[in-house]
Amino acid sequence: MEIITFRLGHRLPRDERITTHVCLVARTFGAGSIIYSGQKDHSLEKSVKTIVENWGGNFSIEHEPKPIKRLEKLKEAGFSLVHLSAYGEPIQDKIGEIRHLGRDIVIIVGGAKVPTEVYQLADYNIGVTSQPHSEVAALAIFLHEYAEGKELEKEFGDAKIRIIPQAKTKKVVHVK
Amino acid sequence: MEIITFRLGHRLPRDERITTHVCLVARTFGAGSIIYSGQKDHSLEKSVKTIVENWGGNFSIEHEPKPIKRLEKLKEAGFSLVHLSAYGEPIQDKIGEIRHLGRDIVIIVGGAKVPTEVYQLADYNIGVTSQPHSEVAALAIFLHEYAEGKELEKEFGDAKIRIIPQAKTKKVVHVK
Repeated sequence: MEIITFRLGHRLPRDERITTHVCLVARTFGAGSIIYSGQKDHSLEKSVKTIVENWGGNFSIEHEPKPIKRLEKLKEAGFSLVHLSAYGEPIQDKIGEIRHLGRDIVIIVGGAKVPTEVYQLADYNIGVTSQPHSEVAALAIFLHEYAEGKELEKEFGDAKIRIIPQAKTKKVVHVK
Repeated sequence: MEIITFRLGHRLPRDERITTHVCLVARTFGAGSIIYSGQKDHSLEKSVKTIVENWGGNFSIEHEPKPIKRLEKLKEAGFSLVHLSAYGEPIQDKIGEIRHLGRDIVIIVGGAKVPTEVYQLADYNIGVTSQPHSEVAALAIFLHEYAEGKELEKEFGDAKIRIIPQAKTKKVVHVK
């Protein structure tokens, strides 16, 4: 099953680091790619590509100037759209259903002021709690629940750098 | 059991939004307070206090200019120190043990360049994966695993604003 993350409304310089964290969380917790709308950000794209080159696995980033049209197309192509929003239905009530759809999914995370169309277009509006917190955390918890924790064991092939977990120190190996 | 979050090395303006997300995640996912070191940030403290006033519950924020001394004191007072770092031991191998300590805990999240002393002082160095991603996500996953998902049901007393979860729209009630 394919998992695409869709980050809406990237703003510069305000969202620089938050969107970077969104991208890295998407990669680490099992999404295959991220599409982002809002301002095109070469530096963001470069950072993500450098991480993938060094730390391995397949993960791609792409800018999309017309997010609503793209989401409509993805829906037509058979993807289920899951929009993470504090206004949505509790994740704990819906995750089982989403997990068993057996379909490719797009996980949408906002920026500021998500257009009403996104709420209407989404197959699911899902709240990781109904409290204000962080799209970074919401995405991590959603992917973690979706994969039932198995994403923690994910291996990233073709890495140049790898950490060997330690109790008290830091150990990094350079593979190539 | 008391849960304190400890954010090391806050830098202005670089960490403004990331530290805010760390604070909001700490509150939402069940910590009772946050202590942060690095630069004192009045605007951060005000934002957190405003969230608590509006959205309820008890959560406090405090600046600490001497983080190592404070961590030593907390350890002497009986807290277990859990440092989240990609270099640490896998969360999935250790969370059961930490959950059953039956002790108050301090969850430490870095900033840039965490001093070696923190790795030595910590009772546990825990990796939420060994991949580079986000202290916001690592904190959320740790708290979620620690509470076994029960934190998703947490109620925040004395709130002025509350969201009523909806499938397709937004519904907010103003309680007072």
